[in-house]
Amino acid sequence: MVKQERAARTRRLLLQAAAEVFVQEGYARASLSTISGRAGVSNGALHFHFETKNLLAEAVEQCAAVTLRRIAATAEDAPGSALQCLVDATHQLMTGLQQDVVVRAGFELCDASGRRGDGLDLRREWQDWVEKMLAEAERRGDLAEGVTAADAATAVVTSTVGFEMLGSRDRAWVARETVSRFWELLLPRLSDPGVLGKLSARGTDSGESAQL
Amino acid sequence: MVKQERAARTRRLLLQAAAEVFVQEGYARASLSTISGRAGVSNGALHFHFETKNLLAEAVEQCAAVTLRRIAATAEDAPGSALQCLVDATHQLMTGLQQDVVVRAGFELCDASGRRGDGLDLRREWQDWVEKMLAEAERRGDLAEGVTAADAATAVVTSTVGFEMLGSRDRAWVARETVSRFWELLLPRLSDPGVLGKLSARGTDSGESAQL
Repeated sequence: MVKQERAARTRRLLLQAAAEVFVQEGYARASLSTISGRAGVSNGALHFHFETKNLLAEAVEQCAAVTLRRIAATAEDAPGSALQCLVDATHQLMTGLQQDVVVRAGFELCDASGRRGDGLDLRREWQDWVEKMLAEAERRGDLAEGVTAADAATAVVTSTVGFEMLGSRDRAWVARETVSRFWELLLPRLSDPGVLGKLSARGTDSGESAQL
Repeated sequence: MVKQERAARTRRLLLQAAAEVFVQEGYARASLSTISGRAGVSNGALHFHFETKNLLAEAVEQCAAVTLRRIAATAEDAPGSALQCLVDATHQLMTGLQQDVVVRAGFELCDASGRRGDGLDLRREWQDWVEKMLAEAERRGDLAEGVTAADAATAVVTSTVGFEMLGSRDRAWVARETVSRFWELLLPRLSDPGVLGKLSARGTDSGESAQL
């Protein structure tokens, strides 16, 4: 393995280990030596890649943000209405939170105490994207009469943050079945009746966690 | 002031100071000396009342649980359907999270890293109560056709946990206006049409935060 490849591999191992330790112990209690030990690299190698715990947390957040943006972009590229994009992306995000500890850590680091924020806030990014999708649905006349994009966004953002939070202690909250039943409840209220029949609360990606 | 009164007052000051420090710095980073300094009492007095930080956190949680149970009991005692109880209690809880740092700290301590849990989990208590109210609404035929108590509970519990989380950084999320608009969106989907007209999404307590 050439030097550059080895460095990239070490960096990936450190990010994965850091995400695991942040999730298990919390950012404030996580120690750099626990992280380097988990990654199987020396303290020196850790410090070569990340000078401080905060820089390591920022790298985890950036890595999680890449996944979040890929989920959003994939949902937007798929055929279907903005509401279906939103349903699909919600399923993918919950799968990500369940299966990818870097995504989980990235979200939890949003409000870790004792951190200087670097301006990256995954919940805020998710909120902005949900608002954009619902504004698009409103513009196309896909929302039910009397339902505004803003009110729909409040319900979707608070619920998905709740799924995320509750799912950190009990994975049943982020299971596809749970999230599908949530959308089965909410879609008939959000969607124009003419659009509702074309929507799938289970998502159009058939339960696969591609793109993660 | 007799000795017993003074002890009770010191205990209250310590609980309030601990809640403030837990919310501002997080449980893991909070130090007992910061808490005693904030309360204006000696370290010795703090240790007399609470031997460890974990015991202090448990006392904050118990104090918040008393408020949560009072909110639930008050909502249940008021005339009106189980759905209206749920709306009223949600408003009171969000007001509590906004105005009473002990309630806020009690909820945040649920998933503070580095703590031994003592079995008290406010989010779980809230979830159990929401499920109870919705089961009652279902039994009385107050839910809309095709809506189960379990699915309604998922939507209400995830949203309220989301409001709580998002409200810790931006109080607009727990403002009465925001929560009213949420219920205006959700109630027409949850409620039997015959019951809907009798429900107030703004709550029947007229915006007052009595009982807190």
